Amino acid sequence: MSLTLASARLADSKSDFPGLLTADGKAWHYLDTAATAQKPQAVIDAMARALGQDYATVHRGVYSRSAEMTLAYEAARRRTADFIGGKEEEIVFARGATEAINLVAATWGAANIGEGDRILLSALEHHSNIVPWQMLAEKVGAHIDICPLTSDHQIDLDAAEVMLTERHKLVALAHVSNVLGSVLDAKRAAGLAHGVGAKLLLDGCQAAPRLKLDVAPLDCDFYVFSAHKLYGPTAIGALWARSEILNAMPPYQGGGAMIDRVTFDKTTYAPAPQRFEAGTPAITEAVALHAAIDYVDAIGMDVIHARETALVAQLRDALSPMNDVTIYGPADSAGIVSFMLDGVHPHDLGTILDEANVAIRAGHHCAQPLMDYLGVPATARASFGLYSDESDVEALLDGIVRTRKIFA
Amino acid sequence: MSLTLASARLADSKSDFPGLLTADGKAWHYLDTAATAQKPQAVIDAMARALGQDYATVHRGVYSRSAEMTLAYEAARRRTADFIGGKEEEIVFARGATEAINLVAATWGAANIGEGDRILLSALEHHSNIVPWQMLAEKVGAHIDICPLTSDHQIDLDAAEVMLTERHKLVALAHVSNVLGSVLDAKRAAGLAHGVGAKLLLDGCQAAPRLKLDVAPLDCDFYVFSAHKLYGPTAIGALWARSEILNAMPPYQGGGAMIDRVTFDKTTYAPAPQRFEAGTPAITEAVALHAAIDYVDAIGMDVIHARETALVAQLRDALSPMNDVTIYGPADSAGIVSFMLDGVHPHDLGTILDEANVAIRAGHHCAQPLMDYLGVPATARASFGLYSDESDVEALLDGIVRTRKIFA
Repeated sequence: MSLTLASARLADSKSDFPGLLTADGKAWHYLDTAATAQKPQAVIDAMARALGQDYATVHRGVYSRSAEMTLAYEAARRRTADFIGGKEEEIVFARGATEAINLVAATWGAANIGEGDRILLSALEHHSNIVPWQMLAEKVGAHIDICPLTSDHQIDLDAAEVMLTERHKLVALAHVSNVLGSVLDAKRAAGLAHGVGAKLLLDGCQAAPRLKLDVAPLDCDFYVFSAHKLYGPTAIGALWARSEILNAMPPYQGGGAMIDRVTFDKTTYAPAPQRFEAGTPAITEAVALHAAIDYVDAIGMDVIHARETALVAQLRDALSPMNDVTIYGPADSAGIVSFMLDGVHPHDLGTILDEANVAIRAGHHCAQPLMDYLGVPATARASFGLYSDESDVEALLDGIVRTRKIFA
Repeated sequence: MSLTLASARLADSKSDFPGLLTADGKAWHYLDTAATAQKPQAVIDAMARALGQDYATVHRGVYSRSAEMTLAYEAARRRTADFIGGKEEEIVFARGATEAINLVAATWGAANIGEGDRILLSALEHHSNIVPWQMLAEKVGAHIDICPLTSDHQIDLDAAEVMLTERHKLVALAHVSNVLGSVLDAKRAAGLAHGVGAKLLLDGCQAAPRLKLDVAPLDCDFYVFSAHKLYGPTAIGALWARSEILNAMPPYQGGGAMIDRVTFDKTTYAPAPQRFEAGTPAITEAVALHAAIDYVDAIGMDVIHARETALVAQLRDALSPMNDVTIYGPADSAGIVSFMLDGVHPHDLGTILDEANVAIRAGHHCAQPLMDYLGVPATARASFGLYSDESDVEALLDGIVRTRKIFA
């Protein structure tokens, strides 16, 4: 598709999202896409069809509709793999990025990280990329190191280079920060990790909906993301890893579909990815995720990224001259702007904005250690999606002016 | 509601299920409800609304739509608790029964089952209620005992009584067998387990859609079931346990929403049930599960059970006189009939039935040890749902006659 046609699709996109209207039919200025994205009608329709006339279980039925649903489920896996430059056998469907990280920690981590080994995280990680490693470290007697940030709030890979040792078995970093929008130099992070023999896990929750991805040149070992932040349904996400890594990992949850043969004497397991998908999977969610990827791909991740980058610039340019506003994160943030308005708690700002149909997030953004690092209890965060436009930025700026007057 | 009105609703129910038509608009005789149930339009509509005009994240947003979605999500938890006679703080949402059992094994099990301890299962369990315990037993050095079946294929609680010792910490049994329809005397099983100080886990996957449930008189300690077998969506299910048990369990997956306070020095966890729901939950699936429970409750589980029991009797009465048919399971099976037609592999039967728009399951039904126990490689299984009626039984019987002719 030409860039012009893609841009035209983007310009029209708000009308594809029924969630972008208030109950009384007004424009809802939704600036919380980093928490979860609204869904295009195509995703809702795909879900409804999968739950309705197409519904059947997968991998089991001897009747044709079950065979068709199995094809649809596996096509969703293939589409997800294509989207990030992987192969279908490298994609494990999980509940979301959180479960995917827990799966890696409980299987690869438990098998490969032992007493005295070290894990490198960064100061800006989401709780989902902290707590699973803390639980593993406590269980096996490993240690966690925290890579600091640069002055403009990017993960400081110069510091990481100094910190990494041969005891480090894993480096786990956000590809894009959910609070600051900072984009990691993933290729350099991979080189540093591999230089000491460690693996690199990338938390791609914010990157998958914001950047064009290709896991091969990124050279990471594990990549995880959630569908619901990628304009898809809740309750599904993906773990990507190369087959030789996946197939060497012990199983995670036991049950139907992940086995080869069960007897009470001895049970053997299926190869990856089935080994990691115990029980009836998220069938209709996989079909709806497929529709979400089709939708964003038809616009193009480059086009989406350009739009979000322009909106970040517009918002930062407007906020920067305000003496009572502190902006966090780098200038080239990917679609996310965190800030503070002096003398106004972010929750109060959020509440006042809500009255004008502007939705931002206020709080610790599941990144309490980052709040400690920044020395604030919370921030206000505006995050853009492919449907965001100048009117959303203007509504936010109007709301800041109004809030300032209320608190003056 | 009067029984008459409920029965009238049941009589009309097929038209509520868009999945019960073939692609060309003919009746689809769906006899695989034990694998997964078709969804009423009310569930599909609830899902579409939750993904559309009502969509927002839960537990976090400072804007009103997120607060409303949080209320809806927690209302779904309350409704699920009510449905089985529990309290809302006793319900953990999991991906399904498989994950719920794995959660119990990895948390309560790892904390309470040690070297030399014993777990009692039965010969008819689904892989989901076998493999998680095998994985735990292997990890901690515990032993698994297998309760045999009676001659009519019920779990032999007389045998269990003899087998149980004070080394048994857990008894884990299917409330209703997914292959045979056998209904466990759960209250007696609870008494036997508690008599030796063990806990009782009931796999309620087939019971929740077939029996009126009340966990209090059942006196079990853990109850699990999947929404997709209860006419609800995929990717969600429930674990019920009393709060004193849940709150004593260590966390399962780490991440957002399950924490109290995260620092790199020390992380503390939220109380149950939030402790066990890391990451963005199955938001829209919870809302759709609520709609599914409303739907079945409006008919009444007693009415559904009576309908399915009558259909089992009709099918068994027709099959019993056939010299070339072997029926498995007890006469009072809850909605499920497994059988074999001499000289015809169940897969071939299933394929021929499929041509006449009759869908049965053929295979090991994720219960390979039970197949070994019965001495068969597979069975054919017809399983009923609330929408099943005499026409479905007749279509199956016609198909058996046709198959017999083809193989004669």
